[in-house]
Amino acid sequence: MIVCTTIDGIRSNIRWLRAERKIGELSPRIGFVPTMGFLHEGHASLIQKARAENEIVIVSIFINPKQFGPNEDINRYPRSPQEDQLLCEQLGVDALFTPSVEEMYGKSDIYTHVHVDLLGNFLCGKSRPGHFDGVCTVVSKLFHIITPDAAYFGQKDAQQLRIIEQMVHDLSMPIEIVSCPIVREADGLAKSSRNAYLSKEERALAPEIFNTMKWMKQQIILEENDVRQVRVEAIHRLEGYPGFKVDYVSIVDKKTLAPVDHIDHVSGTLLAVAVYVGNTRLIDNINIA
Amino acid sequence: MIVCTTIDGIRSNIRWLRAERKIGELSPRIGFVPTMGFLHEGHASLIQKARAENEIVIVSIFINPKQFGPNEDINRYPRSPQEDQLLCEQLGVDALFTPSVEEMYGKSDIYTHVHVDLLGNFLCGKSRPGHFDGVCTVVSKLFHIITPDAAYFGQKDAQQLRIIEQMVHDLSMPIEIVSCPIVREADGLAKSSRNAYLSKEERALAPEIFNTMKWMKQQIILEENDVRQVRVEAIHRLEGYPGFKVDYVSIVDKKTLAPVDHIDHVSGTLLAVAVYVGNTRLIDNINIA
Repeated sequence: MIVCTTIDGIRSNIRWLRAERKIGELSPRIGFVPTMGFLHEGHASLIQKARAENEIVIVSIFINPKQFGPNEDINRYPRSPQEDQLLCEQLGVDALFTPSVEEMYGKSDIYTHVHVDLLGNFLCGKSRPGHFDGVCTVVSKLFHIITPDAAYFGQKDAQQLRIIEQMVHDLSMPIEIVSCPIVREADGLAKSSRNAYLSKEERALAPEIFNTMKWMKQQIILEENDVRQVRVEAIHRLEGYPGFKVDYVSIVDKKTLAPVDHIDHVSGTLLAVAVYVGNTRLIDNINIA
Repeated sequence: MIVCTTIDGIRSNIRWLRAERKIGELSPRIGFVPTMGFLHEGHASLIQKARAENEIVIVSIFINPKQFGPNEDINRYPRSPQEDQLLCEQLGVDALFTPSVEEMYGKSDIYTHVHVDLLGNFLCGKSRPGHFDGVCTVVSKLFHIITPDAAYFGQKDAQQLRIIEQMVHDLSMPIEIVSCPIVREADGLAKSSRNAYLSKEERALAPEIFNTMKWMKQQIILEENDVRQVRVEAIHRLEGYPGFKVDYVSIVDKKTLAPVDHIDHVSGTLLAVAVYVGNTRLIDNINIA
């Protein structure tokens, strides 16, 4: 596996891989999995799908300072560079791109950012201003460096996925965005690098997020109870667990991400939740229509 | 010459041109000239340079509503589609891309925009809020559609050129930006589609913009007069002509576009002017250091 820390380095290796993996006259397909490292089974599922669908697979690991807010401690973000590299190697990744902040943004900073209107106003965008501009800017930059045919994102970050799909559509980026299902622990907790922050007691209670979501879905779909009433009860239920503080429990349109009062099987409805468990902010979501 | 009005159409033609123009194992280079049409010798010089430097030359004509302000009448913008097509054909352009607004931005609109900080605060950015976001967004989109190796821009729109260079750098777009010198009429007036708006009397006086800039350069470089004083005198001189109203006369750093009080031969200094001649806003610039 090739490991590159510079933009020029990964570019020349991709040129080389493109030439080497050519199938007759056809260009080989590049599948790309952008990550912030501390890789878990969720990332592994993205890499495996990319491996199955492309001749060349590139993974990036970059903890992007632009998507952390002033009150979010980037230095606390968990890292495991050696384990990450080993996992990529085992999964048959062709090249790993691990640039420094200076390599990506220069000695001072960059002047340019990519912004997606409206979709960032709901869910995580509310409590994390600027977060999605940071995501879009770095993803846009990574796409220009790697020039993938397809890029793989997890449905756990549902809003991020939706915003990136919109950006790619609006700016006519020649890239297919592939969305991959959430990978969960045996007890239902969605896999996340942030789970590493949880104490033993917090970890034991964290599956109640998914349990509450399943309960909500049942109340809304099977019992046909009022969406707003179920939402209020769910917040009450979640905040009953010690250390739980709800950031949001939202039932939204899958396309616009705007809150809805009724589920809609045509446009699709998403149930999305963000809860502080102690100091750790966990997110999760399920389709309910 | 291929003429395409759809994104899918130009993409499949570019794939075909790429395959057809291959030089052994090497990919052919694509040179791209984005325009708003009503082509003049300034555009022709860009196309000729692109033709000389690339195996494939693509020109786009798209009057981008996003870069017109609420007080700027896009419907008044001059058009000459048949003459434009003929000129492109004569200059050996391989494909002309002329999408509709709906093809570029959909039935409603797009949610995404690309913004470059700081550089848009000076010169034209001051009197045309949102203009450069519109430029960056459409150029970014066109770059993703055409996937050129090099794109050609005129130095007449000096701020636009500088902002696009910054965007390409910041977002690591794999594109070389080629800047081409201003083409002038025999009497010194910079070629511009907007010159078509001028009445006979206004056209006769319009060269005084370039004359005043040459006078300023002489005052500053040869006579070593104070930059601020020369600027004040230049504004007075320009506004002495009937129908002239100065938007700005600015002496700025070539990199940051911020106003300077002294010329600087290391970072470079640009003299840039925007003047309303009657209702027509004309811009021009020269390097003074």
